[in-house]
Amino acid sequence: MMKTKQQRGVDFYLDPGETLRAGPGFRLDAVDPESTPGYDGRKADGARHLDRQDARLDDLQERLFAASKGGSDQRVLLVLQAMDTAGKGGIVSHVVGTMDPQGVHLKAFKAPTDQEKAHDFLWRIEKEVPEAGMVGVFDRSHYEDVLIHRVHGWADEAELERRYAAINDFESRLMEQGTTLVKVMLHISKDEQKDRLLARLHDPAKHWKYTTNDLAERGFWDDYQAAFQIMLEKTSTAAAPWHVIPANRKWYARIAVQQLLIDALERIGPQWPAADFDVDEQIAAVSAS
Amino acid sequence: MMKTKQQRGVDFYLDPGETLRAGPGFRLDAVDPESTPGYDGRKADGARHLDRQDARLDDLQERLFAASKGGSDQRVLLVLQAMDTAGKGGIVSHVVGTMDPQGVHLKAFKAPTDQEKAHDFLWRIEKEVPEAGMVGVFDRSHYEDVLIHRVHGWADEAELERRYAAINDFESRLMEQGTTLVKVMLHISKDEQKDRLLARLHDPAKHWKYTTNDLAERGFWDDYQAAFQIMLEKTSTAAAPWHVIPANRKWYARIAVQQLLIDALERIGPQWPAADFDVDEQIAAVSAS
Repeated sequence: MMKTKQQRGVDFYLDPGETLRAGPGFRLDAVDPESTPGYDGRKADGARHLDRQDARLDDLQERLFAASKGGSDQRVLLVLQAMDTAGKGGIVSHVVGTMDPQGVHLKAFKAPTDQEKAHDFLWRIEKEVPEAGMVGVFDRSHYEDVLIHRVHGWADEAELERRYAAINDFESRLMEQGTTLVKVMLHISKDEQKDRLLARLHDPAKHWKYTTNDLAERGFWDDYQAAFQIMLEKTSTAAAPWHVIPANRKWYARIAVQQLLIDALERIGPQWPAADFDVDEQIAAVSAS
Repeated sequence: MMKTKQQRGVDFYLDPGETLRAGPGFRLDAVDPESTPGYDGRKADGARHLDRQDARLDDLQERLFAASKGGSDQRVLLVLQAMDTAGKGGIVSHVVGTMDPQGVHLKAFKAPTDQEKAHDFLWRIEKEVPEAGMVGVFDRSHYEDVLIHRVHGWADEAELERRYAAINDFESRLMEQGTTLVKVMLHISKDEQKDRLLARLHDPAKHWKYTTNDLAERGFWDDYQAAFQIMLEKTSTAAAPWHVIPANRKWYARIAVQQLLIDALERIGPQWPAADFDVDEQIAAVSAS
């Protein structure tokens, strides 16, 4: 499974699917948010790496889209979860944003509306799952219902247990329909969050990104870490594992997510569909038109 | 209104809002699809121009998004119409694709479903109009209902007249709600379409983009040109004008659409919203957290 850096055609060895997977016995508090597992380059190397791999990701995404026109049911769903300021937005703009918008379905889930609250928590999620050929991206997701809900006690233990099971069933069904799930938790340290909140507060062009609620939620830091740990234990399955990405270094988190998407698409191996018409006949007809 | 090239900070004078506007007396058949009005550079210059203006468009779009968090109701809707192969997809990937996906709502309208057909033609459109702060992009639109429907006689003259009026009313309402409309027709020549269809047919990686229906529709070329001409006369209003962009040169069409978006956003002039909290107080609180 592992490839050398030469096989990958890049300068550094990076296999986040292996190194960052939250497998059995995984401990979130053992992950150093400053680290860059599997990558021995620096920031400038990482930026170059990201640029160089853009074209590969874009090509694979176009092939996925094209394959669906030929009848393939394959699709990808990237799920992003993280503490505030961990860099979900940067992943969307710098990694997702390099793909053709025509093949991407992005959904940022906010606090549910009254109508959404009147339904099961997966009701609003189901409506946003990607069609065949698409790369879906969830900026927050159904996992909020076992994270913020656990932290604030909006659901009791029995209900949370029901939700973990419902999520695993739901994701199994998505996979049966041809979805490859890429589940990513961006992991920053509490100090790093402080620095990033302060940076927003010191820049008037970033004030709109800040709310006083960010500080209130920060007060529940340890509870969130515990909720993430349980989420990982309950829902990091063999078929749909979580990847915990150290994210104090934004450039590292971006190349890691980019590589996870590339690897997912390479596993699918989408092919240009064969023409369902006689090519020579059409060339003659168009030439004569 | 007009700016010199120095004022724009770019090498060449380009004001598509003026030069490409379909005003009173506009004749589609007087537009040369090979031409590059307002731009005296060549392909390589155009590519550099596009790259250089990326950051400006991206910055304005972020400001628009931010302003909506401060209560602004402003938004933009780019409407793209064209003959097959004219380059709508290239506009989406190379112009729209440079903006942050979080601030873009793209909708490609296909042939309507049975459910959509059971409603008025604007029913499915209304559901996709951009929220405040967003740049909406329609790849095809409500204008299909006065283009392909006129060409194939799916609507009679009275119904088409009703639709032109309904479209103008609908767009007036969007503008009252804070929408700036950017309506773009990409204009290619019949010979150019032939070349592009043949290029698709000669490249197995492009076969999925071709259907035999493309050739059938090409047979109605003159009828489509006539339907576009009437559409322009009926719906290119002072407040929501059409811009007809010569598109045989893809690079030119891209910089023209990019500039139309930049100009629309500059007219809105979105501002970073002021903090709705006491900044110093929050800095102290975060620092102590």
